[in-house]
Amino acid sequence: MAESKVVLVTGASGFVGGACLPILAERGYVVHALGRRLPVGGPPPGVSRWHEVDLLSDSVERLVAAVAPTHVVHLAWVTERGRFWLGLENLSWVEASLRLFGAAARHGARRLLFVGSGAEYALTNEPSGGPGQPGAGSSLYAVSKDATRRVLEAAAAAHGVSFAWARLFFPYGPGDAADKLVPTVIQSLLAGRAAECTAGTQVRDLLYIEDVAEALVAVLDSPASGPIDIASGVGVALRDVLLRIAAITGRADLLRLGVRPMAAHEAPRWVGAADRLRDDVGWQPKVALDDGLSRTVEYHRRASAAGLQRPDR
Amino acid sequence: MAESKVVLVTGASGFVGGACLPILAERGYVVHALGRRLPVGGPPPGVSRWHEVDLLSDSVERLVAAVAPTHVVHLAWVTERGRFWLGLENLSWVEASLRLFGAAARHGARRLLFVGSGAEYALTNEPSGGPGQPGAGSSLYAVSKDATRRVLEAAAAAHGVSFAWARLFFPYGPGDAADKLVPTVIQSLLAGRAAECTAGTQVRDLLYIEDVAEALVAVLDSPASGPIDIASGVGVALRDVLLRIAAITGRADLLRLGVRPMAAHEAPRWVGAADRLRDDVGWQPKVALDDGLSRTVEYHRRASAAGLQRPDR
Repeated sequence: MAESKVVLVTGASGFVGGACLPILAERGYVVHALGRRLPVGGPPPGVSRWHEVDLLSDSVERLVAAVAPTHVVHLAWVTERGRFWLGLENLSWVEASLRLFGAAARHGARRLLFVGSGAEYALTNEPSGGPGQPGAGSSLYAVSKDATRRVLEAAAAAHGVSFAWARLFFPYGPGDAADKLVPTVIQSLLAGRAAECTAGTQVRDLLYIEDVAEALVAVLDSPASGPIDIASGVGVALRDVLLRIAAITGRADLLRLGVRPMAAHEAPRWVGAADRLRDDVGWQPKVALDDGLSRTVEYHRRASAAGLQRPDR
Repeated sequence: MAESKVVLVTGASGFVGGACLPILAERGYVVHALGRRLPVGGPPPGVSRWHEVDLLSDSVERLVAAVAPTHVVHLAWVTERGRFWLGLENLSWVEASLRLFGAAARHGARRLLFVGSGAEYALTNEPSGGPGQPGAGSSLYAVSKDATRRVLEAAAAAHGVSFAWARLFFPYGPGDAADKLVPTVIQSLLAGRAAECTAGTQVRDLLYIEDVAEALVAVLDSPASGPIDIASGVGVALRDVLLRIAAITGRADLLRLGVRPMAAHEAPRWVGAADRLRDDVGWQPKVALDDGLSRTVEYHRRASAAGLQRPDR
């Protein structure tokens, strides 16, 4: 007889959260989804109950007491472009994350998966702050995520909670926010507009959204603790990603590499380590980059075709 | 014409907070003190206004907006023996500290002094957590304080706030909590009871309470940022401290060194670095250990004499 598994998922209306929900349901979890607003079409398939909750202002203690989750997947964080790197909202999200952990620990949750970022890597090899020297070049976002992990790992060790910290790198695929690089370029090229880009020398670790979601659920289902990169372990220059999109769409003529300057916070290289995911969790990526990009272009092709048919456009 | 300086002091009813209040008033600050309860005799001398506030549950945003402090001294944290090393309350105090910082930054405070601990030193030379390796042997308290500093230094850098982090080591003197080592031993010896101690081989950095409070105010008044040890820089074995107390009280016969085991979390050595306080703040300790211990014994002698005269004892 299977033990009952109840999972609370924050950030459930986000790109990654939304992709996790059906997989969790398939694996036998009773899924409680948290989001500030119920999605327009109602709770997504697989969700037992949607909780309209603002983690920054509502009482998570009462909710956790009522739901009594055995598992928690915490994805919510400030993500607004232009705010999340340096905004004071990061402090509020550290607070919300610690509150959620405390509530879950007090109410008997046995497995917690909180989500960090490859951006923390900029910190990893820095000495801890000397006099007046906050980690040079490290964003408030990265420091806040990293500090959240440090506190929660110590709390988990002290209170016998199984805790993992999944670092996301560069998820991409259908459903990504429209202002992200891959959707922006695909939509431009499909619409016949020029896509003005940086030189694309930045090296990133891309993972298709279905792989990201499957990896997160695999980590949740495993006993692995501590930081685990949700990553392919393979670095690709964004230039090569963009050239691939241009080839798939057949509009290499519209791709303008090197016409925009690199943003100040752009790190030259963010690549994860795939070893813990492979060795400790027993999971490996399934969708190759070419395949993932083809599927993503196809999704946007259909979406724009559907959009053209909608009478309100 | 002097600029108006309004300071908000949290933990104002504590040992260190209480010692800071009159010094702040002398230096021309309008002093707003925060504590869960108004002290029995009313606000201490020098306090303009006492705010009965629980930082863990009350809205600090509204209070900070109303007081509009130019300066903040944040001392409050969980201190209950047996809870503060590992209790989940540490997470709540990280939250409260970040909330206070955010509110102060939003409402125009220009100088923030938050208080850490020499306990963080256990972390300083550790590599940042590898897979599944929270800082070995480091307490949730130390990790929580350290993480608070990391986040707030990054936030201060991003938002142009002048921020210092004062690490306390071993403050002692009149007014210390009765269950601390120095008061316990003094009271035992003065009462003619045996004082059962560990071997006292732990090396600590003691600073007399008036020096601690003066140092904190000196840091607040300086532009120095980042972590600053509130320390003498001199390590003394607790054994020598206890022998000195025995000599001052004339009851060496009652001191039992080595009859109690060392607690698991006792670090062999916690000694601060006095260089930043001396060079960047321009402050040095005034009260030598012998003098400070003599004053502390004298305080307890008077207190117990006064106590003996009270009819309810």
